[in-house]
Amino acid sequence: MITRIDGRALDELRPIEIIPNINKFAEGSCLIRCGNTHVLCTASVEERTPPHVGEGEGWVTAEYSMLPRANRERSKRDIAKLKLSPRSAEIQRLIGRALRAAVDMKALGERTITVDCDVLQGDGGTRTASVTGGFVAMSYALHKLVEDGVLASMPLKTCVAAISAGIVDNELMLDLCYEEDSAAMVDLNCVMTGEGELIELQGTGEGRGFTIDEQRRLVDLCAKGIKEVQEIQRAALGG
Amino acid sequence: MITRIDGRALDELRPIEIIPNINKFAEGSCLIRCGNTHVLCTASVEERTPPHVGEGEGWVTAEYSMLPRANRERSKRDIAKLKLSPRSAEIQRLIGRALRAAVDMKALGERTITVDCDVLQGDGGTRTASVTGGFVAMSYALHKLVEDGVLASMPLKTCVAAISAGIVDNELMLDLCYEEDSAAMVDLNCVMTGEGELIELQGTGEGRGFTIDEQRRLVDLCAKGIKEVQEIQRAALGG
Amino acid sequence: MITRIDGRALDELRPIEIIPNINKFAEGSCLIRCGNTHVLCTASVEERTPPHVGEGEGWVTAEYSMLPRANRERSKRDIAKLKLSPRSAEIQRLIGRALRAAVDMKALGERTITVDCDVLQGDGGTRTASVTGGFVAMSYALHKLVEDGVLASMPLKTCVAAISAGIVDNELMLDLCYEEDSAAMVDLNCVMTGEGELIELQGTGEGRGFTIDEQRRLVDLCAKGIKEVQEIQRAALGG
Amino acid sequence: MITRIDGRALDELRPIEIIPNINKFAEGSCLIRCGNTHVLCTASVEERTPPHVGEGEGWVTAEYSMLPRANRERSKRDIAKLKLSPRSAEIQRLIGRALRAAVDMKALGERTITVDCDVLQGDGGTRTASVTGGFVAMSYALHKLVEDGVLASMPLKTCVAAISAGIVDNELMLDLCYEEDSAAMVDLNCVMTGEGELIELQGTGEGRGFTIDEQRRLVDLCAKGIKEVQEIQRAALGG
Amino acid sequence: MITRIDGRALDELRPIEIIPNINKFAEGSCLIRCGNTHVLCTASVEERTPPHVGEGEGWVTAEYSMLPRANRERSKRDIAKLKLSPRSAEIQRLIGRALRAAVDMKALGERTITVDCDVLQGDGGTRTASVTGGFVAMSYALHKLVEDGVLASMPLKTCVAAISAGIVDNELMLDLCYEEDSAAMVDLNCVMTGEGELIELQGTGEGRGFTIDEQRRLVDLCAKGIKEVQEIQRAALGG
Amino acid sequence: MITRIDGRALDELRPIEIIPNINKFAEGSCLIRCGNTHVLCTASVEERTPPHVGEGEGWVTAEYSMLPRANRERSKRDIAKLKLSPRSAEIQRLIGRALRAAVDMKALGERTITVDCDVLQGDGGTRTASVTGGFVAMSYALHKLVEDGVLASMPLKTCVAAISAGIVDNELMLDLCYEEDSAAMVDLNCVMTGEGELIELQGTGEGRGFTIDEQRRLVDLCAKGIKEVQEIQRAALGG
Repeated sequence: MITRIDGRALDELRPIEIIPNINKFAEGSCLIRCGNTHVLCTASVEERTPPHVGEGEGWVTAEYSMLPRANRERSKRDIAKLKLSPRSAEIQRLIGRALRAAVDMKALGERTITVDCDVLQGDGGTRTASVTGGFVAMSYALHKLVEDGVLASMPLKTCVAAISAGIVDNELMLDLCYEEDSAAMVDLNCVMTGEGELIELQGTGEGRGFTIDEQRRLVDLCAKGIKEVQEIQRAALGG
Repeated sequence: MITRIDGRALDELRPIEIIPNINKFAEGSCLIRCGNTHVLCTASVEERTPPHVGEGEGWVTAEYSMLPRANRERSKRDIAKLKLSPRSAEIQRLIGRALRAAVDMKALGERTITVDCDVLQGDGGTRTASVTGGFVAMSYALHKLVEDGVLASMPLKTCVAAISAGIVDNELMLDLCYEEDSAAMVDLNCVMTGEGELIELQGTGEGRGFTIDEQRRLVDLCAKGIKEVQEIQRAALGG
Repeated sequence: MITRIDGRALDELRPIEIIPNINKFAEGSCLIRCGNTHVLCTASVEERTPPHVGEGEGWVTAEYSMLPRANRERSKRDIAKLKLSPRSAEIQRLIGRALRAAVDMKALGERTITVDCDVLQGDGGTRTASVTGGFVAMSYALHKLVEDGVLASMPLKTCVAAISAGIVDNELMLDLCYEEDSAAMVDLNCVMTGEGELIELQGTGEGRGFTIDEQRRLVDLCAKGIKEVQEIQRAALGG
Repeated sequence: MITRIDGRALDELRPIEIIPNINKFAEGSCLIRCGNTHVLCTASVEERTPPHVGEGEGWVTAEYSMLPRANRERSKRDIAKLKLSPRSAEIQRLIGRALRAAVDMKALGERTITVDCDVLQGDGGTRTASVTGGFVAMSYALHKLVEDGVLASMPLKTCVAAISAGIVDNELMLDLCYEEDSAAMVDLNCVMTGEGELIELQGTGEGRGFTIDEQRRLVDLCAKGIKEVQEIQRAALGG
Repeated sequence: MITRIDGRALDELRPIEIIPNINKFAEGSCLIRCGNTHVLCTASVEERTPPHVGEGEGWVTAEYSMLPRANRERSKRDIAKLKLSPRSAEIQRLIGRALRAAVDMKALGERTITVDCDVLQGDGGTRTASVTGGFVAMSYALHKLVEDGVLASMPLKTCVAAISAGIVDNELMLDLCYEEDSAAMVDLNCVMTGEGELIELQGTGEGRGFTIDEQRRLVDLCAKGIKEVQEIQRAALGG
Repeated sequence: MITRIDGRALDELRPIEIIPNINKFAEGSCLIRCGNTHVLCTASVEERTPPHVGEGEGWVTAEYSMLPRANRERSKRDIAKLKLSPRSAEIQRLIGRALRAAVDMKALGERTITVDCDVLQGDGGTRTASVTGGFVAMSYALHKLVEDGVLASMPLKTCVAAISAGIVDNELMLDLCYEEDSAAMVDLNCVMTGEGELIELQGTGEGRGFTIDEQRRLVDLCAKGIKEVQEIQRAALGG
């Protein structure tokens, strides 16, 4: 039998922990820990929307960043290079699309929710942890709007969560940690709804291409993992 | 029967034209036209590699940009906003990964190929046209290195081409033009090798999620389209 | 007799070709080819003016840029250096002034025409080709405003075109190509109206100064060339 | 008797907690909590120094930043504004000078320690918490260098810690929280060594000037507070 | 007896000269020379305030910059590095706070005074010279507003001036020139009002810490110096 | 007879004053005053050249900037807009070319002279004053290199000076001040050598075109003015 670097089964998630309301000021927040990947997610509500948003509708956007020492080596801050890391640009676009897919924008009304995902420590899977934790932080903020009487009911159409799978040494495995990710030939991320539908799917062959059959099995593996992640999300959201 | 906006069948590509060596100075170049999407691709060879590349190995990178009036409305240049468009950042990362997948870096040796994909006119599918055209421009540049005696043989492991498919009004269709893309509920891009293996896969549900079954059918549709694209590539590459 | 590098007579232009309406979306556009110098010019109309423009008046502005592989060597994009190339800054100011000189701003009304001149391939004379082609693209856009009934008549006071002349090996010659330009001791550009009046004049001694008499003869040479350029412009504009 | 907003005595610190080695990758790290002010401090070691540093000597530098939702209102990231917040610029210069004052640069040898202070939550006193926590993180990193045999002994000349005091409603008080700080007429920060000497002193009259006598009493108040802070530091450093 | 590098007594200022109205356009201006430190100060009045300023109130802000050859070695311009020098950022915040402390913002009304302090030549003490000269330039501009009938009376609560003191070779001395400053172990700047109250106080130990007693004596030395500076200010302001 | 705004004859210069060695640190410097236009010029010598300069040769470059309150209205600093003013970019390229035309780069040897032209007050003609004053500052720096024994003799091929002329109300006039410049229909600048040869020539029709004959007369007017400017230069340079 294949042994993974940390002893997990091939289709086993790392332990996930969601610490709610970690930030005293944000309308919603959590710290999500997926193994050694730690992401601080805060959701901030503003009573206005960007110009491209239609009248009577809301907006959800996300920003993603890594603290300089989130990784094995210190990296320079974006501001020192005067440019947003292209990787961060790509990831925060993904998070934003994923979260928007869950929200009924008319029910949200003319307000913006900005979800900040700041990686305190990164050990692989920071983008999927950000989607999963970002959804929880956003939900807390929406709960607060309901509790405060601003909204009549939760403006959510579904929930979203994410996980990755990959092929390492020709073995398909779920939820790669950094060391596995570095060695992966193929890496695939899924964002799915509570109904098991795909919202985002990104797969990359790093060392080799992957067959359509492998692609299908990786998506199936992610689907299995996301179900488990969604149980943890539900627990964090009280139900 | 469903009629598409431009009368195409659901699994029909737009006409593709590849005009070779459009640029007098670049080591390789082409203008690729996929319907009304026109991308100028140039491949430039430099006899050095960036620091992160191992000794004795080559590198391939890509840049993607839209001319200000490539679209229905004029957009500001990146330099006027002092930031690379996040969309361009994401796309050029994709193109770079796709092209690198085709090249044997040791056979290329310590040199860099930079493929510039400048969209002269955009009507949907600019990123997939860029991958397809970028591969042709790069191949011309590699041919030139072989002809000039710099390389003994073509350092290619495979060829790569790309196409998109999507779901519009609950119909799956191949190679969306801008108007279809704007109305699409689901949009999925594939990059595949000559052997039919996936290199990149990106799917997004814009208006709704998509089932695993739909996802599979979209990939199959792309696989069909990419085969046809690769025939046009082969013709352009004289073989 | 002096033979120029490409066999032209000293006072002979390179072949000029203007391909109209090359861009499907822009209100006006052309591709101008002056020998191996190829510039894509698009004119975009917006129904507002910048703050410094008086009420009831219009505005014309230009942007100039070279694609990274327009030249013999690839150059970095402006955005990679986070600054507009000073040369581009200087040239686009010249193009803007030249085009504004042709337009009756009150007749144009409160709208802005932005002329983008993107050099696809540069072989000397890109700034003068941009003025000449930019005027054609702008005229097409103005025609369209008249055809669409937005303007009652063409808001043009005159036409403008441009050419360069220089001194190479102590010989005065018209319309320098890149190789001549690199060897030129003196380089002088003129923008002139249809009436033969000067709008812009820029002369530079690179290797040596030039006498007032030489300066006069260079302007005369440009005046001769511009007349021929204006015939080609008139043909492109339908008479 | 004066009651402070949180019931503290005028010369009483907020509860301080230092959680060591919070980051798995950094050579040294801690999370410092001073009341509701939470700062994540990491110390990173690099085996080279910037050009201005003399041969055989080391260097210590600091960076300070607030997460976007560290405050009552979300603030934009520096990179969105393309400029380092001037307040952050000022604070990180202060932290850097303070930490350098504690280190024997010759004993450190040709290496750089970069201390990143990222404010997860800010409730007043973030700069002084950063100095205090930054010193602890740096000390852990130096310990590690000693344990790893890179350094023979700890290259510290002293320890440094910091606190603020201020005048609110004409009352002098120690360690202002945000609400007090907002209402303060005078605000003064001190960095002091283990020997009770000043390293940095910054005082500002916001609503009124302050007398030399008041200034002296504020420094005395800080001196008292810093002694208590240093006991907590010593405990965190195991001795 | 201790001899200073330029023969001054330990508590002696460099000669100070204030040349009024050096700029023809600014509402107020002066050139202040403190020994070889020369700062051009201009005050510009605008009839609007930034968004954070309350209704009916005015605003005072400052900018500080060094010309590239103000120093012994040429330094690059900020724009060449695309970032405001952190030192300048820190200093202009200090100048702004100092000048605001002198102004009754309600009496000023909804207008902004921007004081630009451009160092033509720097020989130590540029920030304190900027505060002192900036106050004079601002006062001229306020005088002009009164003369023009815009304001009924001078909206000043007090005057502000600044000086530095330091410890060189264990000797306390006033108003350090560059050479002394470079050798200083301790450097302390004070901004004081006409009533002798502190507005800003910044002290730094560069080579060693300083005792609370030394700190007190440095402030006393500054207080003595500022009184003399204020006499020169008063003379420049005609009274 | 035409009366100019300041009573000058049509072909009369404003009073020019060159104050030598105004900066204590620069290798060469002057303050040039042409009427109310005041430019501080410093020349800095560095013992290295940029990469594009050939072995054994020197380099001369220029930077031009306006202080924020050099004009009738305060303008923002370049760094506040994160971009070099395009006008400054254009002007400093002109100054650099003009100064390089005067220098024998082989005789200068492998060193760079950077001439900074900072406009303290601008009243028209700042670019021509910068060329004229910049040449003087550069000459002082070269003298110093000769005096210091670094160079055997002055590496100058010629001297350069500049002036403008224009057409205001259809009258040709020399050396336009700001008010004339604002009303000018045509504006033309010349840089000339001591031998009366042109180095740079820039003419612009702002309100109307200008005939070839007018252009010739404007150059003649500049030639007359530059001779007088050169006498003042020679006096400043000691003969």
